[in-house]
Formats: sequence, C-alpha cells, structure tokens
Amino acid sequence: MPIRLGELAQRFDCELIGDPDIIIETVGSLSNAPPNALSFLASSAFKKQLPSTKAAVVITRAADAQDAATAVLINDNPYACYARMAAVICPGAIIEPGVHSSAVIAASAKVAKTSHVAANAVIEAGATIGENSYIGPGAVVGPDCVIGNDCRLNANVTFVRNVTIGDRCIFHSGSVVGADGFGNAMTAEGWIKVPQLGGVRIGNDVEIGSNTTIDCGAIDDTVIENGVRLDNLIQIGHNVHIGEHTAMATACAIAGSAHIGKRCMFAGMVGMAGHIEVCDDVVVNGKGMISKSITEPGAYASNFPIEPVRDWNRRVAKIRRIDKLLERVSALEKDAK
Amino acid sequence: MPIRLGELAQRFDCELIGDPDIIIETVGSLSNAPPNALSFLASSAFKKQLPSTKAAVVITRAADAQDAATAVLINDNPYACYARMAAVICPGAIIEPGVHSSAVIAASAKVAKTSHVAANAVIEAGATIGENSYIGPGAVVGPDCVIGNDCRLNANVTFVRNVTIGDRCIFHSGSVVGADGFGNAMTAEGWIKVPQLGGVRIGNDVEIGSNTTIDCGAIDDTVIENGVRLDNLIQIGHNVHIGEHTAMATACAIAGSAHIGKRCMFAGMVGMAGHIEVCDDVVVNGKGMISKSITEPGAYASNFPIEPVRDWNRRVAKIRRIDKLLERVSALEKDAK
Amino acid sequence: MPIRLGELAQRFDCELIGDPDIIIETVGSLSNAPPNALSFLASSAFKKQLPSTKAAVVITRAADAQDAATAVLINDNPYACYARMAAVICPGAIIEPGVHSSAVIAASAKVAKTSHVAANAVIEAGATIGENSYIGPGAVVGPDCVIGNDCRLNANVTFVRNVTIGDRCIFHSGSVVGADGFGNAMTAEGWIKVPQLGGVRIGNDVEIGSNTTIDCGAIDDTVIENGVRLDNLIQIGHNVHIGEHTAMATACAIAGSAHIGKRCMFAGMVGMAGHIEVCDDVVVNGKGMISKSITEPGAYASNFPIEPVRDWNRRVAKIRRIDKLLERVSALEKDAK
Repeated sequence: MPIRLGELAQRFDCELIGDPDIIIETVGSLSNAPPNALSFLASSAFKKQLPSTKAAVVITRAADAQDAATAVLINDNPYACYARMAAVICPGAIIEPGVHSSAVIAASAKVAKTSHVAANAVIEAGATIGENSYIGPGAVVGPDCVIGNDCRLNANVTFVRNVTIGDRCIFHSGSVVGADGFGNAMTAEGWIKVPQLGGVRIGNDVEIGSNTTIDCGAIDDTVIENGVRLDNLIQIGHNVHIGEHTAMATACAIAGSAHIGKRCMFAGMVGMAGHIEVCDDVVVNGKGMISKSITEPGAYASNFPIEPVRDWNRRVAKIRRIDKLLERVSALEKDAK
Repeated sequence: MPIRLGELAQRFDCELIGDPDIIIETVGSLSNAPPNALSFLASSAFKKQLPSTKAAVVITRAADAQDAATAVLINDNPYACYARMAAVICPGAIIEPGVHSSAVIAASAKVAKTSHVAANAVIEAGATIGENSYIGPGAVVGPDCVIGNDCRLNANVTFVRNVTIGDRCIFHSGSVVGADGFGNAMTAEGWIKVPQLGGVRIGNDVEIGSNTTIDCGAIDDTVIENGVRLDNLIQIGHNVHIGEHTAMATACAIAGSAHIGKRCMFAGMVGMAGHIEVCDDVVVNGKGMISKSITEPGAYASNFPIEPVRDWNRRVAKIRRIDKLLERVSALEKDAK
Repeated sequence: MPIRLGELAQRFDCELIGDPDIIIETVGSLSNAPPNALSFLASSAFKKQLPSTKAAVVITRAADAQDAATAVLINDNPYACYARMAAVICPGAIIEPGVHSSAVIAASAKVAKTSHVAANAVIEAGATIGENSYIGPGAVVGPDCVIGNDCRLNANVTFVRNVTIGDRCIFHSGSVVGADGFGNAMTAEGWIKVPQLGGVRIGNDVEIGSNTTIDCGAIDDTVIENGVRLDNLIQIGHNVHIGEHTAMATACAIAGSAHIGKRCMFAGMVGMAGHIEVCDDVVVNGKGMISKSITEPGAYASNFPIEPVRDWNRRVAKIRRIDKLLERVSALEKDAK
C-alpha cells in the first residue's frame, strides 16, 4: 500500500530528513532495495551498505543518519520501527469471511461469521472459532478447542483437543498443539501409557513455528503466556510453563514440567531437563544444556565450537588424559616439598 | 466414570486405608486435585505436598502411607497403578464405527466396519485397517499399509506406503512413517537418489509422538519391536532396528542401520551414528552422542551443563591451552629429574 | 521390471563376469537378497558377506570382484551404479494424470494435464504445477507457488506461499516450505512481529526430507541451489543460502542468513549460527556447532562421544578444576626457577 514518507514519519513518530512527498511502495534490504523502498539499518554490521543502497529511505538511529545518501527516518529502535512500517506498506492477505464448501464443521462447533475456514479444514465437536480468524487448508481444530479473535492457523496445523488460545495468535504449518504428553510407567510387562488428561492454555499474541509441538498436560494444563515466540521444530513437553515474552529459536527441546520465566531468550537447539526452573531474563546460547535450575538472570552457555577434526580429536584425547595430568602435577608438588 | 474406592482397590489389588464408599470421579495432581479426585505420589520430590492435598485418595508406597491426611491406596508402583486407574476413571473417547462422507477410501482398500475414518482422511490402494481402529481427520494411509486392531492414527498422521503395524498402536499428529530414507550416491554430476524400496514393520503396543519421522528401509525393512515408545520430533533412519520396550524422549536422531537393543532409555536430543549397535538395557543421558557401539548395559553421558557465559568461555579457552599445559608439566618433570 | 544381466551391464557400462542371460527381477542387500536379485558391495565393512550372499549378481569395484561367488558387475562407484540400476529394476509408481474429485483447485491456479493432484489436496490462487508432477493426498500448494516438471510433493506437504521450485524435486511428507521466518523486534511492550515478505527459491533435483522446514525470506528470498539434499527434521531459517550439491543429515538447524557453500556435507544435528558463512567443500561431524565462519575446506568437529556416566561426571569435575591446575603448574614453575 503506497504511502507518503511524511505520513510514515508522522504516524510512527520519527524525525524525517528528506522529502516528505516521496511515495514508498515496498520494502527492501539495504543491498537489494528498489528505488521506491523503505529499508533499515539495525546493526552496525550492515553500516558499510548504507552509502550505496538504492532505497528511497532508510530508518537509522540518530548517530548513523549522517552516513546515509538517502532520505532518513530517525528512530531509537530501527528494527521495531521497520516492523511496524512494513506491516502498513506490505499488509498480509485480508481474511475473507466464510467457510469453504469442502471444509467439515461439526454441528456443535461455533465459527464466527467474520472468520475464514479454508478448503479441507476440519473443525470438530464443541470447538469455537472467534472473530476474524483464519483456519488454513487441511488444518484440524479438535474437540473442545477454543480459538480467540484475529488468530491464524496456517495450512495443515493440528490442534488435537482441549487447546485454548487467546487473540492475535499465529500457528505455522505443521505445528501440533495438544497431543498427548510422553507419559509412560514401567511395569514387569513393559511400559504402560499414562493417560494424558490436561489441556493447553495459550495467551494472546503468541506465535508458534512450523512443525513445533506443544503437548497437553498430564493432569493440569501446559501453559504458554502472552507474547511468547517459538520458532520451528521446538518441543514443549507436558505441563511446561513458559512466561510472557520468552522467545526460543529453532529446535529447542523442553522436557515435561519445566518452568521458564518471563523474557527469556533461548538460542537454537537448547535442551532443558524436566521438573526444573529457569528464572526471568535468562539467555542461553545455542546448544546449551540446562540440567539444573537457574536462579540468576544472565547469559549461559555450554557448547564447544567446531575445530578441524584432527585438532579436535587431539584435544579430546588430551582431555581424556586429564586424570593422568592431575596425578603428574600432584607428584611434582610432592617432590617440590 | 465414577467408581467406588473399594472397587478401585479390589480391581487393582491395592491395600486401602480409608472409606471404601468414597466415590472417585476424576484424577488430580497432589497440588491441584479437587475433592473427588484420585492422586498419586510417585517420587519423594513431591512428598511435601502430601499433607496438604485436597484429593480424596492418594496412591503411595507403603512407606509413605502414614504421611497422607487422605485415604490411601498402597501399591509398590504408584505411577503405573495411577495410569491403570486413570484409564478407568477418565476413559478416552469411544471409537464410533463409520467412514465420514468426506474421507476418500480407495476401492481396493479394506476398512473394518468397527473402525472410524474421520473427515478428509485418505486411505489409498491396497491398504487395510483392522478392527476398532481410528484414522483421524486429514490422516493419510498410503498404498499397501496394514494397520492392526485398536490402533489410533491421529489427525494429519501420514503413513507413506508399505507400513505394517500391529495392534494397540498410537501415532500422534504429524508423525510420518514410511517416507524414503536418506540415500544418496555421489557422482561426478552430483548426488543421485538411491531408490528406497523397503518398508516399515512395527509391532504391538507402540506409541509414536507428534512430528516424529520413521523412514522406510533402503532394501530390507526398518523394524520397531513391541512396546517401543518414541516421543515427539524424533528421527528414525532407514533400516534402524529398535528392540522391545525401548523408549526415547524428544528430539533424538538415530542414523540409518543403527541397531538398538531392548529396554533402552534415551533422554532427549541423543544422537546415534549409523551402522553401530547399542546392547540391551542402555541408558543415555540428554544430548549424549553415541558414535561407537555400546556393548555393556549401563548409563552413559557426554554433555556439559551450562554455566554463565563468562565462566564457560574462560573454561573453553583454558581447555584449548591444555596442549601447552601438558608441555609445561613435561618440562617440570624433566627439570625435577 | 525384469532385465537381462547383459543388458544391465551394457546400459550402465560395467564389465560383467558371469552369464549375461540371467534375469534380474529385484534388488537385495548382501545378507538378505533372494536368488533373482541385484546386490552391491559399496563398503569394505560388508566384504565378509560377499562369499555367502544368495544374490544373482553383485556390483563391486574391480579389486573386490574375485571374492564373489556370484556373477559380478564391475564398476568404480558400486553404490551409484546400484542406485541407477535399482531405479530401472524397481521403478517408482507411474504418475496417473488427473485431479481427484476431492482435491480443491483455485480458479486462478494452473495444473498441467499430465500431472496428478491426489485426494483432498489443495492448490491455492495463482499457483502453477508443471508437467508430470505429483501432488499427494492432503498436500497444500499455497498462493503463487510455482512447481516445475517431474516434481513430487508427497502426502501432507505444505508450500505456504511464494515458493518456486525447479524440475525433478521431491518433498517428503510433512515438510513445510515458505512459512514465515522467525523475525521479532523487542519493544517496551514485548516482541512485535517483523513481516516476512520474501519467498523461497529452490533449484532442480533437490530432495527435502519429512517434516523439514524451510522458511521464506524476511525481505529477499531463501535460496536452495540445484542438487541439494536435506534429510528429515531439518530447519532452514529465513534468507539462508545453500550451495549446489550440499547435503545435510537429519536434525540440522541453520539459523537465518547463514550462507553455506557447494558440496558441503553436514552430519546429523549440526547447528549453524546466523549471518555467517561456510565455504565450499566443508564436512561437519555429527552435533558440531558452527558459531564462526569457516573459510577453509576440510572436516570439522566439536562433539564429545559418550562414556559411562560415572567416568563422564568425574571428567567434567576435573575439567572444571582446570583453573586450579593451571595455578598449581604456575606455582611449580615459579618454585623451579
């Protein structure tokens, strides 16, 4: 949606250096933007691209504005400012109200008239879909699920049963919410299944990535608070609790009954054992293993970066001789006395 | 389903301390149980919740019974006992026989009349569905798959082709069974695909988690024996063999032709290289990397727990100077002679 | 498809030792092949199975030919030779042109008459399907996706939107291509979504595993070049670029804007941080963590293999005392002066 630069500046409270009558029609990265595009400089790593960009305007912090050869919108948080402006310039598809003829809606399900249920989607008994929501092709909303307003379940999402979500949530394709948790009791005859009877409760403004799985609780519910962001291929076990505005990158695995505080950030492939807690404002680096509770905010890590195989193998061999090394140093200390 | 406490005790062979006429109507965790609920104490970690629980009755080991303020059911395996009782008190949905009008069943497929095929499911040519089984909405049962009795394929499960499963198996949403294994041969022109021609054979009482993938064999079959339990987002490569009652937590990845024994337990994120073996009764801790065969039962590990980033980075730097340290100690030893 | 051994030898340019009139009807592994089967010896690890195989013929390198008790096809690359012959002996199902009556095709979508759209598949507005392609049951091809010739999207694959693929590509069940990347900007009110506006561009001869996810670009496109092979449950973040003929085994996770060269091979569970580069011809061992750019071809690693838990815990404890050890050695050195 084309918009005057002056209107953008005013609407999003930025100082504008440049011609307010320029029309912005799209967005672009600094290196590839077309001449009618809005771009942004969020990280100093990209500062060298600033003089040569073909964008019409770049959002920068005040300190970086003088390096631009283009019009500039000055903002303290260029990335967030870009996000808001991009949502106006390139809005998502509008939800067309209605149920596709191939969708199957149980007689006891309720779908608001402003919502869209796409081809071959299935809404099962007792489910409720709020206003202006979108249920994509092939998505399944299982028995007794409750979906709020302005939500989006993309193609082939599955809500198994007893999942309740708030407003403005997005679930990407292939995500599975409310499947049985992993509960097994060992007996002399082998494992027996422990019935998984709880549900999943999810707040507002939550976004869940493709093929991510969030299990139902064993007895009580699994809980995801407002504003949580989970990337693709993440596992959230039964009865996990994730606090507001916590974000996890891809392939994290959170075991059952783990409790994670607010505003935490886990990089990719972090693992967390069950029945432990992480307090608010904890950052964990990629591939970190959380095996005990964390009670102090801060940044944590436990991963070795790669090295050439020959160096690495030598190092591992030496580490394995650390016992011997300790003994040798003790012997030297004895001799020295 | 409400049940008298006396009947529960008798049916599941527990000693009852308390009023046999109490009616149990639901289950609950020790901390949140309503007054008509059965609860259980399986781990001493929760013993402190025993005096204050509002449950009607708690299953405990004999040694813990005196700490309860409620009625008590005494059993040597409270968790398994709870699992069996919960399945009676809160039974799963009954399978309603029949095929939904939107499901598509190939002419050559056979579906037992006692089974249910849900909306928009697809059963392809030559597939067979046994008695009392449930094929969920959007699930696909590919050509020549054979499904036993009392099985459950939840919404959006995919059996690609040539998958045979026994009785009482459960597949959670998004799991994919029988897709091509990862077989590629390098040539001067790049990779060429190696046809994946085997199937998948799965025994009885197997449960497979959401979005878990089990590939078909390259030539012979991939085999999962009776009673195996796999959590969500696990990868089982082509021609893997998993022995009876082995269980894996989320996000394990088992490479092709790995052979895993009976009663093994892998915690989350364990990786196993291809063409190696793990014997019976092996436990591997979270994030462990199995790169050589294991021939002795027991517990194994290879993971560093997280530390504050500053401490961790210092430690890694010091570990990288272990070569130097070895040289210094050798020099000291020479001097000392 | 039965074929004379002499014809196989001629067509694939192998030297034949044995009777050219033998009819080959199937393929088999060395240990389980039936008497009418083609088998192969690709790795010396299986050489001990050569004398006892019941196969009709085995493909071997010249040096191994004398160990066979069967007919032999001699080839420098037995595995690739097997792959090509197996594709002739056991060809995949033929694509039957046509659209199943339960499939839903948008009025503005174009599907070539030679292609097959299976039951309950959905092709959305503006999508294009080329010649001889197969769209499996429950698969969804989103708005404006372009699929080339001879492609295969298996059951329950999802192309979200704006995905373009070349010819002869295979996508296994549950894979999700073109979902929003993980873009979030922190503000005082919590995360806000950064619109994900790019697409995904995939070349020819690409194969993508089950439940693998490839996100769309944030602004520019995510790019997968010709001949790339990705196993199951892999995550490819927004704006990643993967060079020709690179292959990754299961459960790798590649963060946004990572750039990976040609002919790389990542074993399972490799992680790669965002905004860094790996040059051509890099091999990374299982569970390796790529946290900095790699500029030299070669093999890299960073993983500890498992040990018995008691040994491992002792080793970790000793590694944690490495600070102390360094101090003790320094003290000894001072004393020695």
